Amino acid sequence: MGGDFGPHVTLPASLSALERHPYLNILLFGEVDQLDSLLARQRISESIMSRLQIRPSGISVSMDEKPSAAIRHRQDSSMSLAVQAVADNKAGACISAGNTGALMAFGRLVLKMQPGIDRPAIIASVPTLAGHCYMLDLGANVDCSAEHLMQFAVMSSVMVEAVDGNLHPKVGLLNVGEELIKGNEQVRLANELIREQDGLNYIGYVEGDDVFAGKADIVVCDGFVGNVSLKSSEGLARLISKRVLQGFSRNLYRRCLAFLARPVLKEIQEQIDPSRRNGATLLGLQGIVMKSHGSADQKCFGYALDRAITEVVQNVPEKIAERLSGYLPSKRN
Amino acid sequence: MGGDFGPHVTLPASLSALERHPYLNILLFGEVDQLDSLLARQRISESIMSRLQIRPSGISVSMDEKPSAAIRHRQDSSMSLAVQAVADNKAGACISAGNTGALMAFGRLVLKMQPGIDRPAIIASVPTLAGHCYMLDLGANVDCSAEHLMQFAVMSSVMVEAVDGNLHPKVGLLNVGEELIKGNEQVRLANELIREQDGLNYIGYVEGDDVFAGKADIVVCDGFVGNVSLKSSEGLARLISKRVLQGFSRNLYRRCLAFLARPVLKEIQEQIDPSRRNGATLLGLQGIVMKSHGSADQKCFGYALDRAITEVVQNVPEKIAERLSGYLPSKRN
Repeated sequence: MGGDFGPHVTLPASLSALERHPYLNILLFGEVDQLDSLLARQRISESIMSRLQIRPSGISVSMDEKPSAAIRHRQDSSMSLAVQAVADNKAGACISAGNTGALMAFGRLVLKMQPGIDRPAIIASVPTLAGHCYMLDLGANVDCSAEHLMQFAVMSSVMVEAVDGNLHPKVGLLNVGEELIKGNEQVRLANELIREQDGLNYIGYVEGDDVFAGKADIVVCDGFVGNVSLKSSEGLARLISKRVLQGFSRNLYRRCLAFLARPVLKEIQEQIDPSRRNGATLLGLQGIVMKSHGSADQKCFGYALDRAITEVVQNVPEKIAERLSGYLPSKRN
Repeated sequence: MGGDFGPHVTLPASLSALERHPYLNILLFGEVDQLDSLLARQRISESIMSRLQIRPSGISVSMDEKPSAAIRHRQDSSMSLAVQAVADNKAGACISAGNTGALMAFGRLVLKMQPGIDRPAIIASVPTLAGHCYMLDLGANVDCSAEHLMQFAVMSSVMVEAVDGNLHPKVGLLNVGEELIKGNEQVRLANELIREQDGLNYIGYVEGDDVFAGKADIVVCDGFVGNVSLKSSEGLARLISKRVLQGFSRNLYRRCLAFLARPVLKEIQEQIDPSRRNGATLLGLQGIVMKSHGSADQKCFGYALDRAITEVVQNVPEKIAERLSGYLPSKRN
């Protein structure tokens, strides 16, 4: 029910994913009447209908609802029930385009954290000169201690090993300079803590421009910095797209050029389009929870579904749990 | 003497600026032997030589020197002497491509802060859909209180009024969401403090992508966030430039297309090229101090020189001082 378009995006994206993945089953939690009337407008094969189940839910979490209020008053929301389905082993992963803070709160409450991890972090991939890298946290935690940043480094390293098959992913810590004297206290302390962790391929500080240069496979930062940095880049990518469109439409000659150059321009746009990398994992939970961009369209929501399927197939949370027991002192369960 | 190239960039950029601005005088502080030997290789008209003075300086501040060490041990460095020249009214502005922290420290020590302002902030312009906007702080202060953010909002508003003639610049506060519940404590408190200031055109929270969409004329944030966000965007711009180059050089047909499309591509690149906006002001000092990117080439350093000249002509610090007396309670001098 979440995101800017609710079931108008999530339902057709689900149907399309069921077509792409013949062994996939989907549970849709939401307002049954709305979902049924949307379904009635589509022509759906029996093979697909047999793998789609609709489950009724109560009032949805709104986009500006406080997480604390959501977990008190929205326990029968589609979001809450979807997370519960993962906890009950009825689903391998939960995907939502809704309120990120509430999704995180339900994740922590219902699925619990991995032993040794205090908070979930949002991790997603960004394009780089070398291909892509992962960045975390992207907004789950606006204040992070050095200890949290260290935990992010450890669990993301395990995730990237599992998902990308990159056995020694290079981990960088985002800072305002590469010199040891730079940065605030948390970052300087985190630098020491991460360096102490065995089995990490830690390359030290990276700066904002290193992210897209592909200097690291994983870039660790607090959620405020990560969120602003990611959204700034998305904003700049949109600005450049618009400038390209404007530049190529100024006169007839240029419009002809644009027609000829269309395959090149489209190829470039696809390489940098942030919506192609939709799907951010709430890392650190004992289960897979995937957050889609609220403004995702059907195609874009489909990318998040595909990412969730990969994590289920790769059994990421279990791999993280296995490796964490060797990395970190177990502090809680 | 600062930056990646020292006088190899600053000297020719100075000569070129003296040509562009017939009333400009430049004092170059540095190693006289090196400067003289570089000068000897150039053919310089008498009119230009008469407006260029070389002043000897001691050991330079290194790029990784702690600001506290710099102000103790590098009082006869080119950086220190250049700032001193502004304090002594021998120069209207100081420009450096050197260690930012040390430049800020010398600025505070020698020029002193504007009354009512606790810390200098680095402000520079970024391209937007609407043209450009200003962003501060870009790295002078890695930890900012709500009070500091409020001071940034007030003084930048005055600066943009003076430099751009924009009488009611829209001020936004950078956050991870537009809802009031979002953000960390400093940002939420700063939101209230800024709202209380009379005479500010405050539009509330803006997100990372709003920066480039041109939603605000000024975007206020702490130095860690601003630095990472700006550098990330520069990194992404470089990535896109590279992808465009690669895309247009894959085969002969595409290389022909690139040749035809060259004026369009060049035009777009110039619009988004961060080096064209080189020159960041250390705002809040009782004098003009301009920081150039360390990697600036001659052309790029020239933009910083031009920006400094504009601020001198517009008499920015005095205008800020005038307006600050009405805005903020004077706490120190």
